[in-house]
Amino acid sequence: MLYIYPRKRKTYNKVQTTIMSYNLLKGKKGIIFGALDEKSIAWRTALRCHEEGAQLVLTNAPVAMRMGEINKLAEAVNAPVIPADVTNMDDLKKLFEGAMAHFGGKIDFVLHSVAMGMNVRKGKHYTDLDYNFSQKTLDISSLSLHRVLKTAWDMDALNEWGSVAALTYIAAQRVFPDYNEMADAKALLESVARSFGYHYGVRKKVRVNTVSQSPVKTTAGGGVKGFDGFMSYAEKMSPLGNASADNCADYLVTLFSDLTKMVTMQNLFHDGGFSFTGVTQEVIEQMEK
Amino acid sequence: MLYIYPRKRKTYNKVQTTIMSYNLLKGKKGIIFGALDEKSIAWRTALRCHEEGAQLVLTNAPVAMRMGEINKLAEAVNAPVIPADVTNMDDLKKLFEGAMAHFGGKIDFVLHSVAMGMNVRKGKHYTDLDYNFSQKTLDISSLSLHRVLKTAWDMDALNEWGSVAALTYIAAQRVFPDYNEMADAKALLESVARSFGYHYGVRKKVRVNTVSQSPVKTTAGGGVKGFDGFMSYAEKMSPLGNASADNCADYLVTLFSDLTKMVTMQNLFHDGGFSFTGVTQEVIEQMEK
Amino acid sequence: MLYIYPRKRKTYNKVQTTIMSYNLLKGKKGIIFGALDEKSIAWRTALRCHEEGAQLVLTNAPVAMRMGEINKLAEAVNAPVIPADVTNMDDLKKLFEGAMAHFGGKIDFVLHSVAMGMNVRKGKHYTDLDYNFSQKTLDISSLSLHRVLKTAWDMDALNEWGSVAALTYIAAQRVFPDYNEMADAKALLESVARSFGYHYGVRKKVRVNTVSQSPVKTTAGGGVKGFDGFMSYAEKMSPLGNASADNCADYLVTLFSDLTKMVTMQNLFHDGGFSFTGVTQEVIEQMEK
Amino acid sequence: MLYIYPRKRKTYNKVQTTIMSYNLLKGKKGIIFGALDEKSIAWRTALRCHEEGAQLVLTNAPVAMRMGEINKLAEAVNAPVIPADVTNMDDLKKLFEGAMAHFGGKIDFVLHSVAMGMNVRKGKHYTDLDYNFSQKTLDISSLSLHRVLKTAWDMDALNEWGSVAALTYIAAQRVFPDYNEMADAKALLESVARSFGYHYGVRKKVRVNTVSQSPVKTTAGGGVKGFDGFMSYAEKMSPLGNASADNCADYLVTLFSDLTKMVTMQNLFHDGGFSFTGVTQEVIEQMEK
Repeated sequence: MLYIYPRKRKTYNKVQTTIMSYNLLKGKKGIIFGALDEKSIAWRTALRCHEEGAQLVLTNAPVAMRMGEINKLAEAVNAPVIPADVTNMDDLKKLFEGAMAHFGGKIDFVLHSVAMGMNVRKGKHYTDLDYNFSQKTLDISSLSLHRVLKTAWDMDALNEWGSVAALTYIAAQRVFPDYNEMADAKALLESVARSFGYHYGVRKKVRVNTVSQSPVKTTAGGGVKGFDGFMSYAEKMSPLGNASADNCADYLVTLFSDLTKMVTMQNLFHDGGFSFTGVTQEVIEQMEK
Repeated sequence: MLYIYPRKRKTYNKVQTTIMSYNLLKGKKGIIFGALDEKSIAWRTALRCHEEGAQLVLTNAPVAMRMGEINKLAEAVNAPVIPADVTNMDDLKKLFEGAMAHFGGKIDFVLHSVAMGMNVRKGKHYTDLDYNFSQKTLDISSLSLHRVLKTAWDMDALNEWGSVAALTYIAAQRVFPDYNEMADAKALLESVARSFGYHYGVRKKVRVNTVSQSPVKTTAGGGVKGFDGFMSYAEKMSPLGNASADNCADYLVTLFSDLTKMVTMQNLFHDGGFSFTGVTQEVIEQMEK
Repeated sequence: MLYIYPRKRKTYNKVQTTIMSYNLLKGKKGIIFGALDEKSIAWRTALRCHEEGAQLVLTNAPVAMRMGEINKLAEAVNAPVIPADVTNMDDLKKLFEGAMAHFGGKIDFVLHSVAMGMNVRKGKHYTDLDYNFSQKTLDISSLSLHRVLKTAWDMDALNEWGSVAALTYIAAQRVFPDYNEMADAKALLESVARSFGYHYGVRKKVRVNTVSQSPVKTTAGGGVKGFDGFMSYAEKMSPLGNASADNCADYLVTLFSDLTKMVTMQNLFHDGGFSFTGVTQEVIEQMEK
Repeated sequence: MLYIYPRKRKTYNKVQTTIMSYNLLKGKKGIIFGALDEKSIAWRTALRCHEEGAQLVLTNAPVAMRMGEINKLAEAVNAPVIPADVTNMDDLKKLFEGAMAHFGGKIDFVLHSVAMGMNVRKGKHYTDLDYNFSQKTLDISSLSLHRVLKTAWDMDALNEWGSVAALTYIAAQRVFPDYNEMADAKALLESVARSFGYHYGVRKKVRVNTVSQSPVKTTAGGGVKGFDGFMSYAEKMSPLGNASADNCADYLVTLFSDLTKMVTMQNLFHDGGFSFTGVTQEVIEQMEK
């Protein structure tokens, strides 16, 4: 019998609120990549998917798990953790096999929240890339989505009308100089989503989209040079302000639900209006200082 | 006390299904423009919003109500009907006043599904427009959204984080010759949504979006010349096939819900992948016949 | 016999330069709308087209000619002035008849540089439009392009591979709040260019494009509220700086030439990179003040 | 002393014509990558640039030169050939050094017409990519543009207001299934052009653009599966028909000239209107067969 129960979440849109589950993902099974720590979008999304009734498997790169943070999340959402290096096809195969064994069936949704900028990490300017690093960046951040989809495709691991979403950023469309090589990586990622989305749509009605999210001060995002100045600019340039990781989790729940079945091959801006704002009064005023 | 109950819907994605409500719109109050008959997207959306727990007010042009069809819907969703000519500010004011009186409070969402192509109706080719007709087309189909928003703005009739959606078509971006002057009307409509979306976002956190939907053989859409050939082309060009009116209703429910609070000023393609498909295998094969 | 001769131009990219003509428009005949005074893009374009060997007819609204400025230009480029109200089909017919009589043949290119924001003029905020003004704004700024093209179409006044260009602004894609209703007018204008461009392309190989230009402090543009702050923002947000009216004239010459025959139905950004720049170092630094 | 002389070109837009040079590139020095044989866009562009008064250096991969075809072009345009593997920084450095020595000064323009799809060559379907091949594809087709620009940047080899153009295809925006991995490669290429275009613009006023060209039956393009059916579809979907390699050469001349100084970071569709056409009457009729 169905029952909706109120839940407490510690932080939600900056105010303490009691929210209820809609059971939007009841009966659905999903894999969440990239929940590093409690600030991660993937982490917040795992919590929300769980609240909405989904069963989950969590995964991340073995190296990212050293701190053991992910186990706290695993406990909270009652999900196994299966480590996988997204550049390793054997790892990905084991992940999907493990997930299907755990669920006793196929998978309904996947969140790809994986990115790593080797040149950024090493402090290389965009005009001074090391191309070995570039290849690694693209392999981890962009081709990884292809690898995940190909693994699922080969194993026929996704249910019809399954939903795959990957996180991206508007630097794929317009230049934000400090975003560096990640702009190119995100442009490639979005293209992979469209291209594979076509084939998976035709064959299995699986939909593939990217969500282009406001900047979020995650542990990952926080490392980018000039991030605070940029966050503040983005906030001032968004009529609704920056979308938070929790906002993003809510939005992803709709994309994984049955209510968005005909949305595919899209890059969806989730950013408080930033993407279609040319300038705001607030920014103009700042320019006049 | 909360309770989810299964509902029967006569047609859903072509198969009879028992679906349940998620209560996604519980407590929300909305105005639905443009429910002409049971094939209309607005009609299907009213049904779905009602299922999801929303209270509704229905409206349409007095002239469109002559047949009395809308009364069947009004009964089904337990909503009053308040006629309004969208080019008449007094009518719109009365509509919002009536709705607020009925609800005992402000409004959470609005669906704008209003369009009329005077030149199309009169059989005028795009290269032979009558500009008096053009002005009427733009007034009814595009400026009407501005009038609705201005009415709400002046009366402060929308709750914070309210959601307004208007239906549009991809002809606003690319030419579909038979779509004629409506392409221009939709381009203008989308611009109004963005422009007013900025101001309403800054002032009241209200979000405004357009949904660019697959062609649907509604009574309105069906009148366009060459519509069947076009429907079939769109179907073949969409990896998931054309999105139906019921699919669109589902999608609109997500946009009216609290899960998409940070989505604004967007034109959202809801079309089975048509918008990002350059060509399909099926179309290429047809070209070789 | 062909001969290239050096010319002096008073101002070019802020430095005095001697430039030469390429004869890119030798033998071509064009109509230039909207040369108000010497700061106007249309004015600069007329000068450049003349330098490049084109024969011209100038036109503007009767009301805009009162000051007689245009006669100076007419003398400089050896062109007749034929007044025409762009909302009046009889005027437009007489203009094209007059031009063809003057040229002794059909027309090769047309520059549409016409815009008027009635609400802007009257100081109405975007959320408080007067819809009678709106209709006038759209009629003058957007439908006027349709009227011009329909006039030429009905009279078969353009040569095959003719080129029509209209000036627009990026507010048609993203919101710049002070640009007000003109954003919507430009979105409509761009759609008209695409739509008519399709038909004229199929029938006569005529191409129709819009040029989305940096802000220019013309007499027209200068009237917009907060224009200086905005110019400075645009300058800081453009890797190459704002494009000047003379730069725009150069670019339009290429669009009217035979070298761009296959470019049609495009909105071409001519803006020093503004359109694909998300943020610049200079703007970020300003934000931190 | 300046002199314009008529030239004969064997084929131009399918009819024999005598065209004249405009001397648009007089005094300019450029490097052309990728002139494989006389059908190549790069080959046609080299001829046109030469006609317009430019001095050239030709380059291609050593492996692509085995047939010696390029020597015919070299003779025709009076240019040295300097082989360079675009994935090898030493080769690129030698190329730029050689070019600067030959020209006795810096370079004004560069055409990047380089692409290779390893998976396509090996007959791998998009859903079955070999990722070692993918990396090679991206390295040759996309990162190569970064390498070329970085080489020039490090050597300060480009004059101020220099112009760099790379050839791309609309598959970067929408899916054309047979285009396979090249879609992703082109998306990455376009992002590199934008990203590097920003930095080079700020530092040296150098502009970087991509030209998104109609399909051309080159020796390279011809290898793609189903190419003929696709060419015919593109022809039917373009109001002006497909743009030819010679048309593209003409367009590139404008981009290398001083008349387009403020155009940067753009992806410019040169395709007879294909990109903004949703469907044509001709295609609809074909669908009804």
